[in-house]
Amino acid sequence: MTGTFISLEGVDGSGKSTQAVMLADALRDRGHEVMHVREPGGTPLGEAVRDVVLGPDAMTPWAEAFLFAAARAQLVADVIGPAIDAGTWVVADRFLDSSLAYQGAARGLGIDRVAAVNGPGIGDCMPDLTIILDIPPGAATDRRAGRGSVDRIEGEGEALQESVAEGYREVARRYPDRVHLVSAEGTLDEVHARVMATVVGTL
Amino acid sequence: MTGTFISLEGVDGSGKSTQAVMLADALRDRGHEVMHVREPGGTPLGEAVRDVVLGPDAMTPWAEAFLFAAARAQLVADVIGPAIDAGTWVVADRFLDSSLAYQGAARGLGIDRVAAVNGPGIGDCMPDLTIILDIPPGAATDRRAGRGSVDRIEGEGEALQESVAEGYREVARRYPDRVHLVSAEGTLDEVHARVMATVVGTL
Repeated sequence: MTGTFISLEGVDGSGKSTQAVMLADALRDRGHEVMHVREPGGTPLGEAVRDVVLGPDAMTPWAEAFLFAAARAQLVADVIGPAIDAGTWVVADRFLDSSLAYQGAARGLGIDRVAAVNGPGIGDCMPDLTIILDIPPGAATDRRAGRGSVDRIEGEGEALQESVAEGYREVARRYPDRVHLVSAEGTLDEVHARVMATVVGTL
Repeated sequence: MTGTFISLEGVDGSGKSTQAVMLADALRDRGHEVMHVREPGGTPLGEAVRDVVLGPDAMTPWAEAFLFAAARAQLVADVIGPAIDAGTWVVADRFLDSSLAYQGAARGLGIDRVAAVNGPGIGDCMPDLTIILDIPPGAATDRRAGRGSVDRIEGEGEALQESVAEGYREVARRYPDRVHLVSAEGTLDEVHARVMATVVGTL
């Protein structure tokens, strides 16, 4: 018996980190063993890479894509893969589709090329279900404004975030069996109910 | 007028860093503008990645390959590409072929797959000439033994270095027009003379 792998995606301020916690808790309430991971990070190497990729140094889009791919490969090898093999459910706050939307679409590298580069580091460890929290750009802006600090990517402003949101919609069109768009508007509980309905309806 | 791009390669202890300096000096004596770079590093991002990839954290072969690719993409974009465009000669202490020999061959990821992953970060910024300093494994061991400290990869021992040396020979067989093996045996001046003969004979 292997576990189930669910990733949550969305622009910064879409509420995905909160929804990931709520989803993990709900799955635990249903009796599943659940592991909650976030990208980039989750391993000593991944945290070191997180500091670099979200830090202040200038980097090209491909350097950025390679750094996220490095953290992801380590997370798959050390954490997600073994958990799935052990029958654990994994809820990931970001995974491959973040790179497809941010570097592939918004940075212009191409969704297919970024997917191809990441492929060998992921192998067959792909999410069974990916939920993208879709939110009008203005609403995410308001949520981000309530935060004290922003990282390098969050600090780039609204044009990037709008490109990322459109990139996520393109990802959802390309992989309709795996990727589902869920509206992130409304209260936390309203969004959580939509997330759970998607999980129950598709797995 | 564009510059010329020469990379020097070899196992740890092959003497390539010393030979890179001697080559750069010799080219300057001939009147060329010369830039000397090393991998990973050469940019603020590259130095940060260097600390991670040569540091103590455990990493999978693909994570390692992605980190080197990230530092390389930044070095190409910020340093090597602009220098070549400005007519400067570039002497690189390691470049793509290090990844092909270390991660592609010795770590078993496959030379073709590692080349494919690195491709988009390099674009058309490939060396005009690559010189691999070929040395019997025992001789490089003796040279490394004379050093005070070793990094994570150097510290892995002789089996890795022997696989890397064989990987470099495979790289030379695959890209005979660009890549030339030069014996690293003998004095510094003897090796330098072979390097210069290869440069003069092929460019």
